[in-house]
Amino acid sequence: MVKISEKAQTMPASAIRKLVPFADAAKASGVKVYHLNVGAPDIKSPDCAFQAVVEKCTGMHHLSYTNSAGLIELRRGLVEKYYRKIGIDISVDELLVEVAGSEAFACAMQIAADKGDEIIVIEPFYTNYNTFAFLNGITLKAVPTDIREGFRIPDISAFEKILTPRTKAVLISNPCNPSGKLFSREEMLAIGEFCRKHDLFLISDEVYREFCYTEEPHFSAMNIPGCEQNVILVDSVSKRYNLCGSRIGCIVSRNKDVMAAALKFAQSRLCPPLLGQYAALGALDTPQSYFDATREEYIRRRDCAIEALNAMEGVYTPTPLGAFYTVAELPVDDAERFAKWLLTEYRLNGETVMITPAASFYKTPDAGRKQARIAYVLEVPELRKALHILAEALKAYNA
Amino acid sequence: MVKISEKAQTMPASAIRKLVPFADAAKASGVKVYHLNVGAPDIKSPDCAFQAVVEKCTGMHHLSYTNSAGLIELRRGLVEKYYRKIGIDISVDELLVEVAGSEAFACAMQIAADKGDEIIVIEPFYTNYNTFAFLNGITLKAVPTDIREGFRIPDISAFEKILTPRTKAVLISNPCNPSGKLFSREEMLAIGEFCRKHDLFLISDEVYREFCYTEEPHFSAMNIPGCEQNVILVDSVSKRYNLCGSRIGCIVSRNKDVMAAALKFAQSRLCPPLLGQYAALGALDTPQSYFDATREEYIRRRDCAIEALNAMEGVYTPTPLGAFYTVAELPVDDAERFAKWLLTEYRLNGETVMITPAASFYKTPDAGRKQARIAYVLEVPELRKALHILAEALKAYNA
Repeated sequence: MVKISEKAQTMPASAIRKLVPFADAAKASGVKVYHLNVGAPDIKSPDCAFQAVVEKCTGMHHLSYTNSAGLIELRRGLVEKYYRKIGIDISVDELLVEVAGSEAFACAMQIAADKGDEIIVIEPFYTNYNTFAFLNGITLKAVPTDIREGFRIPDISAFEKILTPRTKAVLISNPCNPSGKLFSREEMLAIGEFCRKHDLFLISDEVYREFCYTEEPHFSAMNIPGCEQNVILVDSVSKRYNLCGSRIGCIVSRNKDVMAAALKFAQSRLCPPLLGQYAALGALDTPQSYFDATREEYIRRRDCAIEALNAMEGVYTPTPLGAFYTVAELPVDDAERFAKWLLTEYRLNGETVMITPAASFYKTPDAGRKQARIAYVLEVPELRKALHILAEALKAYNA
Repeated sequence: MVKISEKAQTMPASAIRKLVPFADAAKASGVKVYHLNVGAPDIKSPDCAFQAVVEKCTGMHHLSYTNSAGLIELRRGLVEKYYRKIGIDISVDELLVEVAGSEAFACAMQIAADKGDEIIVIEPFYTNYNTFAFLNGITLKAVPTDIREGFRIPDISAFEKILTPRTKAVLISNPCNPSGKLFSREEMLAIGEFCRKHDLFLISDEVYREFCYTEEPHFSAMNIPGCEQNVILVDSVSKRYNLCGSRIGCIVSRNKDVMAAALKFAQSRLCPPLLGQYAALGALDTPQSYFDATREEYIRRRDCAIEALNAMEGVYTPTPLGAFYTVAELPVDDAERFAKWLLTEYRLNGETVMITPAASFYKTPDAGRKQARIAYVLEVPELRKALHILAEALKAYNA
């Protein structure tokens, strides 16, 4: 009999999506499921994004390939209208359009590390880093952080401790999915110094940059002095304008070898999606008021979520300063079992809630087993209902 | 100093795009370059594709992720409105939407073969198969064919000869890019029998299916009796509707393990581009008259190209029965040097022509060194001018 490859067999299924069939079954039986599990917000995208697509598509002749690096007007627009505005000074040659953040970090990881090499991540971390490490035979080594310390980045000695001759990069997400942790300038400088000292790449996934809830502006890895050759920035329009479905992101680096390699990877898949590039091009005209309003809305949601969570007996979550997630410790033995129970057994007036067990965001065995990621992507009234169900469910579960 | 990975360093650059800088330089100096080098046709896409995008985007709220397998309505539409019509009988579970044909065959290759395994290709073959083999540590083993025999598929003993215990699949493109070779039913049955006998996957790239110039319909690998578990179909809307920039394709298989693995790969990149999926959804309503007119136009172009090429002294090309390419043997020592010379030195009234040297379509050293791929993607009057320049250039080159 014909058999699929070992790689295809042993590749881990998406931990985040594992519970989906149970949610589908609940919905099919008439139960309303509040989704606190996925980063799929309900915020309106800027109209200018869709206007650009409608204009381009009206009477269009055909959809041709673009340059593998993306439309030159999009690359220029990103450099001049977006990155310059936020204080990241780059040239067009230092940016290449990718098929969303996913392709950008998959590419960055392969540019940094060969099979058998190691990349340092800070746990909890975005679970798909695991997938691309697996696919490319790269080992992730995790620096642990503590939820009780707000996921503060530990002293650099924790990084030194897991450094080996095979370590090729540090991979961070800032603000962090899943924890909502926002890296301080000092933390970034320390990591930058570590990378420079040991000749490591610093892959900085900043797709949640526009979702920062402090007064200081976000400090990008691109602005760490002396780290120009080390930093590979991963970015995306998915979250910034709520254009997740457009699949447009980019990879940015001042390292010429990195960009030359990124172009070779880009050529192998011909080009990024053209219609999404049009949407991203249109989105460049988004007024600042859009970002301000979105930020205010998320602060309201965050405050609602954090207050409600910490009011539940035995629950603890720090206050996230970025992204739209928080990781909460729950008074349960196993958050995965609890999450499944919510979908399969628990109902409050015919409703339940879906959360993401946090274990898959950790590399250290058993770490995060009692934690869950909560995405505060619902409007406050809905969010309140969802969290009320969670509170009641925890009481019932522990009774 | 920080150094990129061995993989990123040694990854081959796109052979097809290597000449692009010379073409750009020629254009910058005011020279008109006729492109016979790329499969980027000028045919109009069906209006229904763009109408669907315009309708969806008008007043749209935001662009969310779709299911990793693609929009269910697109999967259903492909099964019911497209594949059923052309005689490929599949269910929705047997089809998954991919980010164009490129992702589909990259995924299929990884599902079929591990690092160190081998995949049999028939040379000349699409050069990006090489790239994805390289990236995954897979070795391509080539069955040679002869341009003088119209790239006829050799007896199956040629396949047996290169079979090893590490052979996991046969990968074909039908109709073939670059040769325009259309596989006969008998050739397909023989390859299918070989795959079944040796428990190999048959990865069949059929993205040029709508471009067949014989009276018999295209015979898909999906319809080889008894090969249900072996066949993985790679498909795309890029060429079918001239929607190359939409980046929408699919992977189709009746093998449940293959589809389960394809879903895991799909989840790692979250979802295919949504706007492209809308275009593909709209394109499902393309009337048969569109395909008929396109086919007639390509037959005109092909006949023009083949006649002109074979009329040149020392040039030979067989008559391709599919796709929109032909491979021609040229009276030159090295087609790559000649192609570069066309761009850098030769001018006929301020014009020149760009062709693709065929060596990169071959695995066997030196094979195809005197050959070039000619894409007949220009309208007949332009095509005629381009071929006239080629004819004159060959005379000048050999003088």
